[in-house]
Amino acid sequence: MKTYSVAVIPGDGIGPEVVNESLKVLKAMEDVHGGLKFVTKEFDWNCSYYLKNGRMMPENGLEQLREHDVILFGAVGDPAVPDHVSVWELILPIRKQFEQYVNLRPVKLLRGLESPLRYKSHQDLDFVVVRENTEGEYSNSGGLTHEGTPYELAVQNNIFTRYGSERIIKYAYNLAAKRSKKRLTVATKSNAINYAMPFWDEIVKEVGTNYNVETQLYHIDALAAYFISRPEEFDVIVASNLFGDILSDLGAATVGGLGLTPSGNINPEKKYPSMFEPIHGSAPDIAGKGIANPIAQIWSISLMMDHLQMPELGELIVNAIEEVLENTAIKTPDLGGKNSTEDMGNAIVSQI
Amino acid sequence: MKTYSVAVIPGDGIGPEVVNESLKVLKAMEDVHGGLKFVTKEFDWNCSYYLKNGRMMPENGLEQLREHDVILFGAVGDPAVPDHVSVWELILPIRKQFEQYVNLRPVKLLRGLESPLRYKSHQDLDFVVVRENTEGEYSNSGGLTHEGTPYELAVQNNIFTRYGSERIIKYAYNLAAKRSKKRLTVATKSNAINYAMPFWDEIVKEVGTNYNVETQLYHIDALAAYFISRPEEFDVIVASNLFGDILSDLGAATVGGLGLTPSGNINPEKKYPSMFEPIHGSAPDIAGKGIANPIAQIWSISLMMDHLQMPELGELIVNAIEEVLENTAIKTPDLGGKNSTEDMGNAIVSQI
Ligand SMILES: CC(C)[C@H](C(=O)O)[C@@H](O)C(=O)O
Ligand SMILES: CC(C)[C@H](C(=O)O)[C@@H](O)C(=O)O
Repeated sequence: MKTYSVAVIPGDGIGPEVVNESLKVLKAMEDVHGGLKFVTKEFDWNCSYYLKNGRMMPENGLEQLREHDVILFGAVGDPAVPDHVSVWELILPIRKQFEQYVNLRPVKLLRGLESPLRYKSHQDLDFVVVRENTEGEYSNSGGLTHEGTPYELAVQNNIFTRYGSERIIKYAYNLAAKRSKKRLTVATKSNAINYAMPFWDEIVKEVGTNYNVETQLYHIDALAAYFISRPEEFDVIVASNLFGDILSDLGAATVGGLGLTPSGNINPEKKYPSMFEPIHGSAPDIAGKGIANPIAQIWSISLMMDHLQMPELGELIVNAIEEVLENTAIKTPDLGGKNSTEDMGNAIVSQI
Repeated sequence: MKTYSVAVIPGDGIGPEVVNESLKVLKAMEDVHGGLKFVTKEFDWNCSYYLKNGRMMPENGLEQLREHDVILFGAVGDPAVPDHVSVWELILPIRKQFEQYVNLRPVKLLRGLESPLRYKSHQDLDFVVVRENTEGEYSNSGGLTHEGTPYELAVQNNIFTRYGSERIIKYAYNLAAKRSKKRLTVATKSNAINYAMPFWDEIVKEVGTNYNVETQLYHIDALAAYFISRPEEFDVIVASNLFGDILSDLGAATVGGLGLTPSGNINPEKKYPSMFEPIHGSAPDIAGKGIANPIAQIWSISLMMDHLQMPELGELIVNAIEEVLENTAIKTPDLGGKNSTEDMGNAIVSQI
């Protein structure tokens, strides 16, 4: 019996609703694959927890999580708690402290769905964004000065280490080398972000010499435009923390919306648990109505299976999602239908 | 006779080709509007100039430009010269030293064109991006340290002053207040860029209390996605230097491409000359072939007319462009046609 322990953090808003469905899929994995067991443990760390306890997780929260093989994360955020609190005290510490330096975000138009891009189809929209996940623009360094004067200013320091840049760029090259196009697209802005980005480009150049992979460097402004005009060019895209954040939401919009796209926060060395979550947030506006699309969260279980080196299971999940989208009438409101979160979850499970 | 002096910097690549057409349009303005004269002076500052002289413009370049009312700029950049040189020694000094703190970038689907967004039409795509143009992520502050060691790192300081943020946010509110939707959308990322962006949001809040304008704050990742899914929501968008750069290229892609969209680098106080340019670059791949689309550059003349307080003339130009797109078969290759830069320029002039 192969046993994995899964820490589950449903979070706020629609988080618990979609996590619920993805847990059914996790169970289904056990049924499909004899000799596999997922032991889940739920953690109630979210904004209500914060309002009660003055913190997003207990002091030893990270230690508690660390004992698990993987983390399943819903979404966190509530109008009653400042965004930066929920983010900086829960999700970002997990990403940073567990060295989940790869944020993997597939951009793939599923069978049964239409892209909002008029002339783009399934062959055109199938790539993956490899986002740096621990430093760069999210370095938590800076401050205010001359407060209360007309000369007041804020400084935000973006810190790009060689160590942090090399490891994500290597990861991206390795991934590109394994795929068929053998092409890596690099997001940069070295014409304007004049210290960090030339440094990043230089490391790309150094690392790239070791791979038989074509390298394309695009400035982030042009690259965002190419997501609309020529997405078919892309295979693997590597980007800094902020650029990867923007590109992956944009990519999600081109394949049908934020309700669909998953993400894996990966520590490739498996020294620490990796974390799987949708790229969408807690969506307070539709929370509690049972109408959120659980596909992004369920797809994140597929990334979890890949990470646990059971890609056959990962594929099974994506296929099940596509079966439902293509061959049934079940659609949540974001896809123009009237079905519930649960309807969608159950339909996917029944296809597995 | 009202006389304006126009400094013309055609630049590199397709720059001179498209500037050529826009100068015809400038002439046409004189014909239409009796008693109006544009005296142009050309400056050959570009990458060839750099390769000869070791600098992008003469030491007193800014002084030379300063005597003019406005600047017409093509595009700069050549594979033989590092990007950051051409940019940091020509275009960015002009923007910064002439306090062109507003970068105005309309995103508007012209009559006769189809959006690559399947379900979006002309009513849905008509807004303007107001980009901060002097500081923020383009502050030229930072450096490398621990060079040659495994601990090497680059720091890039993003500097947001109260002075710089207030003036752009006020400008955006004023613009929004004059338009019919009375809505300002603000790009932020205060949940992760944790010093600069909360500061920016705070200034938005302070300034906003003085206006009868609805304020929407969106994180840049979500906002980029909304450019695809709900552009009809937008009227005026205010964004930092980098965010505005990304959003305006993305916006251009949704209305037919970089060949179409203009930009005005505005010093609203008219203490210094303002500068008008396409948002596209020098496009070395198609330079010299006479096939570049001159519309972006010509449209920038329209923004120039607005700035010189002749909005009727500005409108005339946009109408002429739309007439050609809607009622003639003239199309440059980027629009799927076979016409030349000159064909397009002449056709537009003949409609004025
Ligand atoms: C050339 C480059 C520095 C510039 C910018 O980023 O501002 C360009 O992309 C633009 O948008 O005008
Ligand atoms: C919540 C926020 C800080 C986060 C990010 O920017 O990383 C989110 O947008 C994401 O993409 O996971």
